[in-house]
Amino acid sequence: MCCLLCILCLFAPALMWPQTVDADRHAMVATQLTQSALEKQEGYRLLGELCQIGPRVAGSEGANKAALWAEATMKRLAFDRVVLQPVTVPRWERGSVEIAEIVLPEKLQGVKLNVCALGFSIGTSGEGITAGVLEVKSFEELRAKQAQAKGKIVFFNRPLDQRFTNTFSAYGRAVDQRTRGVVEAALVEAMAVLVRSMTTKNDDVPHTGILSYQDGVQQIPGAALGVNSAEALSQALQEEPELKLRLQLSCRHLPAEKAYNVVGDIVGSDKPEEVVLVGGHLDCWDKGEGAHDDGAGCIQSLEVLAMFKRLGIKPKRTLRCVLFMNEEFGTLDGAHEYARLAETSGDKHVAAIEADRGAFTPRGFRVQTKDKNDIARMQKWLPYLEHAQIEWIKPGGSGADVAQIKNARLLIGYVPDDQRYFDVHHSANDTFASVHPREFELGTAAMAILAYLLSEEGW
Amino acid sequence: MCCLLCILCLFAPALMWPQTVDADRHAMVATQLTQSALEKQEGYRLLGELCQIGPRVAGSEGANKAALWAEATMKRLAFDRVVLQPVTVPRWERGSVEIAEIVLPEKLQGVKLNVCALGFSIGTSGEGITAGVLEVKSFEELRAKQAQAKGKIVFFNRPLDQRFTNTFSAYGRAVDQRTRGVVEAALVEAMAVLVRSMTTKNDDVPHTGILSYQDGVQQIPGAALGVNSAEALSQALQEEPELKLRLQLSCRHLPAEKAYNVVGDIVGSDKPEEVVLVGGHLDCWDKGEGAHDDGAGCIQSLEVLAMFKRLGIKPKRTLRCVLFMNEEFGTLDGAHEYARLAETSGDKHVAAIEADRGAFTPRGFRVQTKDKNDIARMQKWLPYLEHAQIEWIKPGGSGADVAQIKNARLLIGYVPDDQRYFDVHHSANDTFASVHPREFELGTAAMAILAYLLSEEGW
Repeated sequence: MCCLLCILCLFAPALMWPQTVDADRHAMVATQLTQSALEKQEGYRLLGELCQIGPRVAGSEGANKAALWAEATMKRLAFDRVVLQPVTVPRWERGSVEIAEIVLPEKLQGVKLNVCALGFSIGTSGEGITAGVLEVKSFEELRAKQAQAKGKIVFFNRPLDQRFTNTFSAYGRAVDQRTRGVVEAALVEAMAVLVRSMTTKNDDVPHTGILSYQDGVQQIPGAALGVNSAEALSQALQEEPELKLRLQLSCRHLPAEKAYNVVGDIVGSDKPEEVVLVGGHLDCWDKGEGAHDDGAGCIQSLEVLAMFKRLGIKPKRTLRCVLFMNEEFGTLDGAHEYARLAETSGDKHVAAIEADRGAFTPRGFRVQTKDKNDIARMQKWLPYLEHAQIEWIKPGGSGADVAQIKNARLLIGYVPDDQRYFDVHHSANDTFASVHPREFELGTAAMAILAYLLSEEGW
Repeated sequence: MCCLLCILCLFAPALMWPQTVDADRHAMVATQLTQSALEKQEGYRLLGELCQIGPRVAGSEGANKAALWAEATMKRLAFDRVVLQPVTVPRWERGSVEIAEIVLPEKLQGVKLNVCALGFSIGTSGEGITAGVLEVKSFEELRAKQAQAKGKIVFFNRPLDQRFTNTFSAYGRAVDQRTRGVVEAALVEAMAVLVRSMTTKNDDVPHTGILSYQDGVQQIPGAALGVNSAEALSQALQEEPELKLRLQLSCRHLPAEKAYNVVGDIVGSDKPEEVVLVGGHLDCWDKGEGAHDDGAGCIQSLEVLAMFKRLGIKPKRTLRCVLFMNEEFGTLDGAHEYARLAETSGDKHVAAIEADRGAFTPRGFRVQTKDKNDIARMQKWLPYLEHAQIEWIKPGGSGADVAQIKNARLLIGYVPDDQRYFDVHHSANDTFASVHPREFELGTAAMAILAYLLSEEGW
């Protein structure tokens, strides 16, 4: 008896099979990746190695050593292709002298404040700048007090607004003081700028970060005060408005230098010309170890590929880890160089995922895409991503480096919890010791699961 | 012209109004509560005060001082009713002697291991117990090696399985060694038990916690080793299987003592007999400051009511903060006593929310309810709760204390991120310094928003 029903029955398993099998396999691989990351903690160990190399300011010996270490590590882990991609980067170095001390009134003479130069600041000459201090909370207030600012050190003292649930929102609303303070202060003929550190932590560790000069506006030095120092200075100014401060900074610009992106691939078995990129920026500020910003993102990306190797998972599309050189100076030299290559190589970038928000416990992914349906399609993967505590996928910004890859179909940013990020960001607090191995490794797993799904399914 | 349409129009605003206005007001209050918690950090300051009182083991001077402090604090904050509810609790104290040292072979003689008595353990007499050591990973292994166990110290050395994403799952699969190890070991005529600490952290801080004896089975002492000590002992046993250890513990049981639940109310304006309860347990282990476990839950609960007072929000239903006495000994005396009161008082418990999983960044709420529709109804509140980073509401366990309130309509557990919890749990690592103010305060805000919604909407 050979009825139509029987024929349908014969086909039914074949029709049903692939989707179920895919789902089972995806779930199995998500479990495997998560368990391997959490159990082996290999990436955490590698992050420890990276942090021991020393500060990785773009163009510095440390940054180039780190690039060579990353290249050697990728080769040791048997990545299929490993390339150092030369990049020319501007150079700036802090030097050894950073002093902010009260010189008048006599009773406060010699009181030192915890200070560090802002990135790209010019230094001071000789014994530095000795001047009165004008405290303001905003550019508007500065302009209103223009007459008092001339010849002074302008002290921007608007704290991060703790009321924001998202600390990046608080940071975004305060950071103009650091980035543009020197321009606004120069426009009212001030001598230098001190800025309260951009941090949520109540300590006295100064946080550096880039400032921007403006063509045609006098360049003046800029430095950050630790929060406790900022509050002490504010208090002192209330009692002694005529207080004078000496600011001395030995930081300086140097000629541009050769540096490197580090690029490592596992070539895809089915569609090698289609690329799923994971990456972070290898450079960091010099005050800590750049563990969260962005050693973590680099090693999480590197570990994504390493885990595929370790577990014998062969990606259908090419997995590429890119460690970008020079995000912190804001010139994104490595990102631009890579993007140029991406445009000319003929590779199709299915997706580029950046990790550059610290090594904290995972929360979600942000996706930059022109097609709104992409988000809904990706959200179907949440059951796999939940193995690594990913709770959501939402539209939003990706990352400064991957955002330069204009021909990438999806630009994705990994989003860990942000409550502690600005405690450490750009400061001596950003050490390997401040990274929690399980939080870090769940981030690795989150990136690995997403990279796996993109490599399997394409886009 | 008076048509039906006009009449409908007149009514329409009245019909439409409440829901929109409620939604707007809920959103406004959620914002207010979150911002106030994050900005003022008043709860964090109170937690610092509580942690300075000293250890709060049930029945100890510290626990009773803490209860009086909480009562005074609630009164100072002008709660409408504040009651100390007497509870009789069993007593156990650690004493000053906790020694685990190798006595043979000679080359290892005097090597000390980091050890602490498990809660409720009997002490050792005289110079303690000197015996050989049998290392096992499970009760099955112990039973298989029964002949070797007699007269020995049994050393349970199965670590928490780091592969689990959820650390409570890892804990749950290892903790039998601590709770039941002494019974299993006594059944094979062992002299004492050492157990590897129940922790995810790779350090040498021993983690205590309750053990359970069984009627009719010999009581033998039980103690926890720091992870590094456990690994060192395991290594030493491989090289020297005949190794002998001396274990001396001065811990002891004392007569039952009077202690207190602390109960504070803000009386509801519309339905004072309907209660929304928030709570944690005031007792803690003696090794740290009980900051995460469960000082945080207590102060978050207390702050929920304090924020209502501070912001002038009048709850429709009664808000009640209960600080339960004696969760850690497992006898839940305070919870039983409160539940007895709840059954006889005539108060209707709309919901009871417990916070007892640490002060880490918020993730969700678990809800125990017989009606599955409850979850979906609560999930509609997520847009308000997201102000405090609550991502989900799921069915699941609430908390050991509130679960005793059998007539509560909803039993709810606040769930912060768990990655770091077992680093500190029951150990000297559980200090105020290990609590992050913003993570703690977001938890306060999460509890406050949920308590507000329950108070407004009832159930």
